Amino acid sequence: MKISELSRQSRLPVATVKYYLREGLLPAGTPTAPNQANYGATHVRRLRLIRTLRELGGLEIERIRRVISAIEDEDLSRHDLFGVAERARESARTSAEMTDDKRQARAEVDRFVEGLGWQVRPDAGARQDLADALAALRDLGRDYGTEAFRPYAEAADRMATWEVSAIPRSDPPSVAVERMVVGTVVFGAVFDALRRLAHEHHSAILAPQ
Amino acid sequence: MKISELSRQSRLPVATVKYYLREGLLPAGTPTAPNQANYGATHVRRLRLIRTLRELGGLEIERIRRVISAIEDEDLSRHDLFGVAERARESARTSAEMTDDKRQARAEVDRFVEGLGWQVRPDAGARQDLADALAALRDLGRDYGTEAFRPYAEAADRMATWEVSAIPRSDPPSVAVERMVVGTVVFGAVFDALRRLAHEHHSAILAPQ
Repeated sequence: MKISELSRQSRLPVATVKYYLREGLLPAGTPTAPNQANYGATHVRRLRLIRTLRELGGLEIERIRRVISAIEDEDLSRHDLFGVAERARESARTSAEMTDDKRQARAEVDRFVEGLGWQVRPDAGARQDLADALAALRDLGRDYGTEAFRPYAEAADRMATWEVSAIPRSDPPSVAVERMVVGTVVFGAVFDALRRLAHEHHSAILAPQ
Repeated sequence: MKISELSRQSRLPVATVKYYLREGLLPAGTPTAPNQANYGATHVRRLRLIRTLRELGGLEIERIRRVISAIEDEDLSRHDLFGVAERARESARTSAEMTDDKRQARAEVDRFVEGLGWQVRPDAGARQDLADALAALRDLGRDYGTEAFRPYAEAADRMATWEVSAIPRSDPPSVAVERMVVGTVVFGAVFDALRRLAHEHHSAILAPQ
């Protein structure tokens, strides 16, 4: 198909498709004439993946690039795949954002994670995300400790157990990493939306009529 | 305190503090001299709230403005408070984004939510967020129905039950709405980070060593 058809099927403007081609997020098409190329189903699929990561996951181009590299790397082991999927979701951080409060919160979070018995990389970005949340709560005068996170950790543990086991062991790495990233991003958005609906429902039950 | 001290305590640049003052997100200080004013603890608290909503929640100024208006409106009932908190988190939508696929997905989501027996506004934005996620999965060739959402809905229901019941009934509306928004945003970020850590842990357990 021509780029115009690719644009239609992926519901992205031609200029956006060309931008992803230039950035190397999308493999080049088969040249058919000067300045013309032919694209196929893999291009449509890739563009839909990029659109999902951007629109539902809010991922920036650089992070999408890391995910795509992982999908194209057939040598990744299953555990690495999860690492890539998770790293792709980590926030870009600058050292300037680091404060003593956040460092202190980080130490508490590390102890909490160790107490849970979870095997996670010492540099996993989600550790600092958790520490930032703890520091933010204290900034707002809610002096919680990490114990406030426990029911959330239990819920996350249950959810991750079924999510990870749902990935077919027979998937080739490139399929598994795509499945993992999509699952993390899309079902993350699903859960967020359902939690908001459930809040509204439970507050309606409690509200004086 | 002067604006320089306010900037220091809230860890926001003076220019940013001035911007929020101009935008009306922060009440004016008490004038002490031409172009000088005095600020207090409420200003620090407000700035920390704004920072949390921006940094952890990714909320834009317009949505933060809606939250602040709700906090300042003493007439809101408890149920309204939750509505404001939830609406503040809804994505800004343009009609151009709507496609037949998304409309179809929305009808399925509405039936699903009705089946759950949840009382939520017909125009709750989280309904469309859910529909968008369903449409995105189909776009990516994963033809799930809303049944795939059921375990997430059950987890969200459990979480919302304890979260809503944790809000003291004696809180004045302005305190309750702040608590609700902070809870939704910060503990949403907490759960997201914990889910990522749990993914890494569970895939480490499964990975061939």
